[in-house]
Amino acid sequence: MSTLPPALHTELAGLLGEAWRTDPAERLTYAYDNSRRESLPDAVALPTEVAQVVALVQACRRHRVPVVARGRGTNTTGAAVPVAGGVVVSFERMNRIRDIRPGDRCAVVEPGVLNGDLQALLAPYGLFWPPDPTSAGYSTVGGNLACNAGGPRAVKYGASRDNVLALAAVTGSGELIRCGSATTKGATGYDLQRLLVGSEGTLALIVEATLRLVPLPPERRAIRAIYRDVTSAAQAVARLMAQPVTPSMLEFMDHQAVRLARDVGGADLPADAGALLMIEADGDSATLPHAVESLARAAEGDGLVALDDAADAVARERLWAARKALSPALRTLAPGKINEDVVVPVSRIPELVDGVQRLADEFALAIVCFGHAGNGNLHVNLMFDPAEARQSRHAHEAMARVFALAIALGGTLSGEHGIGLAKREFMPQAVDAPTLALMRAIKAQFDPDGILNPGKLLPP
Amino acid sequence: MSTLPPALHTELAGLLGEAWRTDPAERLTYAYDNSRRESLPDAVALPTEVAQVVALVQACRRHRVPVVARGRGTNTTGAAVPVAGGVVVSFERMNRIRDIRPGDRCAVVEPGVLNGDLQALLAPYGLFWPPDPTSAGYSTVGGNLACNAGGPRAVKYGASRDNVLALAAVTGSGELIRCGSATTKGATGYDLQRLLVGSEGTLALIVEATLRLVPLPPERRAIRAIYRDVTSAAQAVARLMAQPVTPSMLEFMDHQAVRLARDVGGADLPADAGALLMIEADGDSATLPHAVESLARAAEGDGLVALDDAADAVARERLWAARKALSPALRTLAPGKINEDVVVPVSRIPELVDGVQRLADEFALAIVCFGHAGNGNLHVNLMFDPAEARQSRHAHEAMARVFALAIALGGTLSGEHGIGLAKREFMPQAVDAPTLALMRAIKAQFDPDGILNPGKLLPP
Repeated sequence: MSTLPPALHTELAGLLGEAWRTDPAERLTYAYDNSRRESLPDAVALPTEVAQVVALVQACRRHRVPVVARGRGTNTTGAAVPVAGGVVVSFERMNRIRDIRPGDRCAVVEPGVLNGDLQALLAPYGLFWPPDPTSAGYSTVGGNLACNAGGPRAVKYGASRDNVLALAAVTGSGELIRCGSATTKGATGYDLQRLLVGSEGTLALIVEATLRLVPLPPERRAIRAIYRDVTSAAQAVARLMAQPVTPSMLEFMDHQAVRLARDVGGADLPADAGALLMIEADGDSATLPHAVESLARAAEGDGLVALDDAADAVARERLWAARKALSPALRTLAPGKINEDVVVPVSRIPELVDGVQRLADEFALAIVCFGHAGNGNLHVNLMFDPAEARQSRHAHEAMARVFALAIALGGTLSGEHGIGLAKREFMPQAVDAPTLALMRAIKAQFDPDGILNPGKLLPP
Repeated sequence: MSTLPPALHTELAGLLGEAWRTDPAERLTYAYDNSRRESLPDAVALPTEVAQVVALVQACRRHRVPVVARGRGTNTTGAAVPVAGGVVVSFERMNRIRDIRPGDRCAVVEPGVLNGDLQALLAPYGLFWPPDPTSAGYSTVGGNLACNAGGPRAVKYGASRDNVLALAAVTGSGELIRCGSATTKGATGYDLQRLLVGSEGTLALIVEATLRLVPLPPERRAIRAIYRDVTSAAQAVARLMAQPVTPSMLEFMDHQAVRLARDVGGADLPADAGALLMIEADGDSATLPHAVESLARAAEGDGLVALDDAADAVARERLWAARKALSPALRTLAPGKINEDVVVPVSRIPELVDGVQRLADEFALAIVCFGHAGNGNLHVNLMFDPAEARQSRHAHEAMARVFALAIALGGTLSGEHGIGLAKREFMPQAVDAPTLALMRAIKAQFDPDGILNPGKLLPP
């Protein structure tokens, strides 16, 4: 049974009709996200109009009832889990594309639009929106903005925050604000739209986004570079990032990942492969060969074992097979996985990977690193058996040490997954006390009663 | 005579020694900026260390004395003019480069470093920092960040806000905060560093910046495209921005600017030139010809009168001569000039230029438009004689109408100059009331006593 104040229930049922759901089965569907954490909301709202969101937040504020915005729940940090109950606002029905303006390189969309659906609609215009999280097919633009989602392409095109021009959002006071303009430059007051990106629904609910679009390069081409060891691969990453052709992807796999992809995933990789880079360039048919040549030149150097160039789509898919073989192969190591996404300056990647390996030895856990090397954003996968209490404890202790290591190397807790529930206790290590106090003070201005996504991002 | 509280004067003289200046001649030097507005500060501080800035702000806060950060005073909006007196903190002595890290594509600098000096130091590493305001030779990185400076290159590489990774800053509470990290991705709490960029010293004094660097393309090449009229040129801008090769500059001159450059500046331009685009590409010798070819193809179309390609540096300089002839030629029209920098979506440039020309007719003023077309960021130059009261009034009335027009076209007040004193009364037209209220509330968290750059950016 819902524990909402009866007056609020009556008001919101009147406002939303069948888009107001309180039966337990429906609530259960919105209780969890991809973090596998779970907490039942008291009700679920499926608004279709901005005015409904405004009225809902105002009503919830009067009753001091939590409001948790939700895209499609692909978040891995628990940011969409309603730990304090209250109302989950799912934007699945606010999924209209308001406008696509190719000449202005922008699109105006509602938050519930799926990233993949948007890309499909943009392709005929020769445009795309850069964020490409693995979840793109079933994650929403609003959710991508809420956690500042990235993906492999971010190395060339930036993450969500770099690709938003303007936002309309409903604050915790129930006020509709409009920040930014549909222009690629702006020096008109404080930049609130980029402040909202990555704020995980704790400051405001995004109800409309004007997105920066980028011309879709007609062709792509990939190189697979295999190195003797992680240090050689990391040195190649630094060389690749210091020359004028920025790769459109620059993905890294450590020796554990390479071994798994080969021995379990069946990928075609030599026995002396100690690390791997997948390097992709994009462009048109005239410039692409030159770009690939520059990247191949930069990839060459001490410790290179093999360099494979894939001139066509089939060959490219074959090269990517090693990366794709990885996730299923990981499951053979252990049933449980903590997938972290720490980020360090590119030059510190070898120290991060070395340090992680030392932790794997110390805690007797398998730890596998791969990810977006051009941004220094590595996914550190700590593998363990949740049924074994000691292993679980070790995995969580090792995770804390991975965070401390990333921060010591000049990096931070998260590159693209966000903080949510999973990392908020570590925030004081990454952000100093006066800065954290300012974040709290800013939160209080947007959300004076603390009703928006309580328990997330900021530490207790 | 300085009107500072004697106790504050004594404390800061002790703290800063000869770097604390109160004699009228020195104070006069720091009274104005490039807006030509002027207001005498009570004292000038020339700190060399962060700890001095912290102590200074804390002391001024205790006495409720204004603190105005200053780079080199190239700002055009009056943002550096101490209208309420108080202490000007000039960062001219905090001009050390702390670190250049080519492998991480970043540099750590103090705010007083000149943009041009930084670029010269970065060039041997094959790197540059994208912001390139006209003032680059004598404006500071701190000043560039404070007003979110752009420049021609922003069309490809972004403005200041797009090229900052982390900041250290002293808030109006006298607290040192550190936000962001030296990584190109981050999803760890609220993005305060981009909030500080463009805040014009009203939230905090930037004392250290970690800047995002970009590889310096070894070669550049320009095309000059002359069009029959502004509409044809603007349509070409939209075509240029919709194809995959993003120009490294895309500068526009309207028919008034073309006429002046030709008739007064002596530029080699045909009589039927109604508008001009300067289109530049950058890259290496292998890819550049293809990029130029793509841009030339996009520049072609209805209304194109002539297309000149400059394959070498001398020819490029000759093409840019028209643009360079413009500023001196402007002075022949009238002694006074209001140089505004409104921004509109690219597709609305023709309507902006048409509307501005109608205002020129209505107010019997010469108005000349040129600027960064790829961002829709046009410099609207209203020419008038300040000695003539009626002309001055007309120029200011027309300026207000230019702002209203830009906003009506979906644009905003400023693309790269900022708000300062000059445009703050227009902020309520560009930013709605609840959003403006949030900006004020955020300001109060950073600067509870309102001592940082009072009278700027936010309207009275």
